[in-house]
Amino acid sequence: MAKSIIVIGSGAAGMTAASTAKEKDPECNVTVFTEDEDIAYSPCAIPWGIEGKSAWTDIVMHTPDFYEKERGIKVFTKTKVESVDDAAKTVTAGGNTYSYDSLVIATGGRVFVPPIQGADLGNVFIVRTIKDGKSIQAALKDAQNVVIGGAGVIGLELAVSLKAMGKDVTVIEMMNQVIPRIADKDMADEIQAHLEEKGIKFVMKAPIQSVNGTDKVTSVTADGKEYPCEVMIFATGIRANLDIPKALGFDIGCLNALIVAPTLQPYKRGRLVPDIYVAGDLVQCESAIMPGATMSQLGSTAVKQGRVAGNNAVSSDKLLFGPVASPWVSVIGEKQIAGTGLSLGLASWYGIDVVAGKAEGLTRARYYPGGKELKVKVLADRTTRRIIGAQIIAGEEATGRIDWLTAAAVNGMTAEDFLMRSENAYCPPTSMVKDVVISAVEDLCKNLGQ
Amino acid sequence: MAKSIIVIGSGAAGMTAASTAKEKDPECNVTVFTEDEDIAYSPCAIPWGIEGKSAWTDIVMHTPDFYEKERGIKVFTKTKVESVDDAAKTVTAGGNTYSYDSLVIATGGRVFVPPIQGADLGNVFIVRTIKDGKSIQAALKDAQNVVIGGAGVIGLELAVSLKAMGKDVTVIEMMNQVIPRIADKDMADEIQAHLEEKGIKFVMKAPIQSVNGTDKVTSVTADGKEYPCEVMIFATGIRANLDIPKALGFDIGCLNALIVAPTLQPYKRGRLVPDIYVAGDLVQCESAIMPGATMSQLGSTAVKQGRVAGNNAVSSDKLLFGPVASPWVSVIGEKQIAGTGLSLGLASWYGIDVVAGKAEGLTRARYYPGGKELKVKVLADRTTRRIIGAQIIAGEEATGRIDWLTAAAVNGMTAEDFLMRSENAYCPPTSMVKDVVISAVEDLCKNLGQ
Repeated sequence: MAKSIIVIGSGAAGMTAASTAKEKDPECNVTVFTEDEDIAYSPCAIPWGIEGKSAWTDIVMHTPDFYEKERGIKVFTKTKVESVDDAAKTVTAGGNTYSYDSLVIATGGRVFVPPIQGADLGNVFIVRTIKDGKSIQAALKDAQNVVIGGAGVIGLELAVSLKAMGKDVTVIEMMNQVIPRIADKDMADEIQAHLEEKGIKFVMKAPIQSVNGTDKVTSVTADGKEYPCEVMIFATGIRANLDIPKALGFDIGCLNALIVAPTLQPYKRGRLVPDIYVAGDLVQCESAIMPGATMSQLGSTAVKQGRVAGNNAVSSDKLLFGPVASPWVSVIGEKQIAGTGLSLGLASWYGIDVVAGKAEGLTRARYYPGGKELKVKVLADRTTRRIIGAQIIAGEEATGRIDWLTAAAVNGMTAEDFLMRSENAYCPPTSMVKDVVISAVEDLCKNLGQ
Repeated sequence: MAKSIIVIGSGAAGMTAASTAKEKDPECNVTVFTEDEDIAYSPCAIPWGIEGKSAWTDIVMHTPDFYEKERGIKVFTKTKVESVDDAAKTVTAGGNTYSYDSLVIATGGRVFVPPIQGADLGNVFIVRTIKDGKSIQAALKDAQNVVIGGAGVIGLELAVSLKAMGKDVTVIEMMNQVIPRIADKDMADEIQAHLEEKGIKFVMKAPIQSVNGTDKVTSVTADGKEYPCEVMIFATGIRANLDIPKALGFDIGCLNALIVAPTLQPYKRGRLVPDIYVAGDLVQCESAIMPGATMSQLGSTAVKQGRVAGNNAVSSDKLLFGPVASPWVSVIGEKQIAGTGLSLGLASWYGIDVVAGKAEGLTRARYYPGGKELKVKVLADRTTRRIIGAQIIAGEEATGRIDWLTAAAVNGMTAEDFLMRSENAYCPPTSMVKDVVISAVEDLCKNLGQ
């Protein structure tokens, strides 16, 4: 008899799992439940949607109708899963109960809104779904002053988009730098300066204390000062959505996310749960750089996990999900910033003594027109001399370079090993003859010493 | 007493060696001899110089005067080294004899011109030095029809530049594809079609038989047909310049280039030669992909070798030059083509049974404006399942992706290992959520089977 596969969640992880399961076993029945109205889109696209750079209809990769007709996958939108019974292997949603042979939980994450007064006022938003984006877009019509809470990449991308729409934008951040946690302060400060030049205001080291107003927001108070605004948006990071796993009693990890085996199966009191797979922002990952847990919560990771979970839901030939370095990139104004592995902050969390190397140059040969700035910082563990992280700021072509450094780091290359065995492709219109990545590792070797 | 270092050759390898030696040991005396007028430039820049996209003065990184005043390196231009005595440790050049403690031979390569009638006629050029470039530029003023012999990357880049200058360009190639040896036919054919759309003519599988004319070239005969032209340019590949190594009796390898140890010292009748180091296009390299010899002859390789040779010339703390995958990239019209490791042709030379994976997509998220085509082909050894090569055609951002795949290949990643442990940085303006590189390796795994 045809297998029945149920997927909870319709983001990159859930829809990749659904499509992979159907592709591997075309006979199986795949059903997706989601509370969202729209499916199969990247939350990373929301800032561009609000600005109008990308149409909302384009951002959605496929409609539920497409999935049903073209892929034979049934999607129930705006449908909350009320309960899961992992003994009876059933899911109850929209008042009906469905049996499954394998279940994929891909319920993602939720924007963390600090528990402060006024966070529930009108014109206070989070930025996660297309619905959020459309609501923000509508509210912006009558707004001039916008406060963004949180200077992570989504907050900054949003700030640039809103500034381009002619708004007065103030970003309020609790930490002493933008893109905290994953970027080092020297790199982050350059991005902040770039945005300040555009007229975006920053209030740093300022925890938000209250959102003020009677019906709608009229100001935000942070670090004792009041910032007037007609719209306030929280971009304060994502926390794993653990409602279903907690209800099922699954084991939660030290980073407050779901512990999984490499097959992406969760655990219950230390025992592997059969026939259930998880994927996406609720998963606690293993670091590819250091022995220990890490959060990834990237779209690219969600897709990778979705493929593994979808395959394993239907096939006895299990795929394994490996440890992650979590390379990331963001286009913020005219600058790209990218990173991989550990930042100085994350390295200190692991207790690692770090040595850095830096270099500056261009994305093209010095004499070839159109070259843009390229700054590379590479971090190594002083003891092992292994490359454990890197960050890049560039006018173009940061992405491939950070993927290159990621491959070096996950393969355990030391700084010296990298210099001896790494090569860069060169032609004048696309790189310097010695790429700045190589120069940064040369500087790293110098700083590591003998 | 201060050490005396002599460098023969002023290209990327020679000047990097000179600068590295001086940097490591500021007390040493560094003298460079070169037959060239200009020094410290990339032959890869010549096509853009001819077109006028880059100024000749900009292409030269530094003048001899700069090296003398800023770096304390003495450069003799237009000076032929007449002989080297490796027992007495002297170099004779321009009628004088100089002693050395360490010698770096970086005499590079020469354009291979097939031994055919008329190759010495007026307005028949090679394309290697700035002097060549200026001569071509001058001759083009009175020319409308140009024949380029050889459809390698330099030949094709030149064809695009000349076409942009309004010339009628015919490329004559002996093999049945452009970019033979390093690109596969399916990828190469796409580049050829792109150039044909621009009006560049190709004559394939046609060895050049003669260059015709009385004083200056008036036509070229290939495969029995005559192609009229006022200018003819040979871009028929580079052969190692072995004049000095052969005079010294150094061991020459199976690829007709200089055999070296990882310290970049040559051998003489199987014994390591003391105090002599070599770098650049005359070196026979070891392949990082397969046990065996390979030629690299890339500017990026020359710089890497120059650093090792320069360091080893002054320091007892020896650097080692590792095996190479030789990633390359070229911008040909609106397309970038890049490759790394083995092509199908090179793999067959090593006797490897190859499986390929391919994928197509965009350089940005589907919905983000400005995304360009991206095609990736990845090759694996059927037996070991290791990634042994890759090629990319893209409208942008091919370079970083090929460096990424190079890092994977030189670290011995199998196709499955790559899928499990590789990650791509993602944001809508710079990549798809699952990069096309990953999709190509997924296809490769499928084609490899169980």
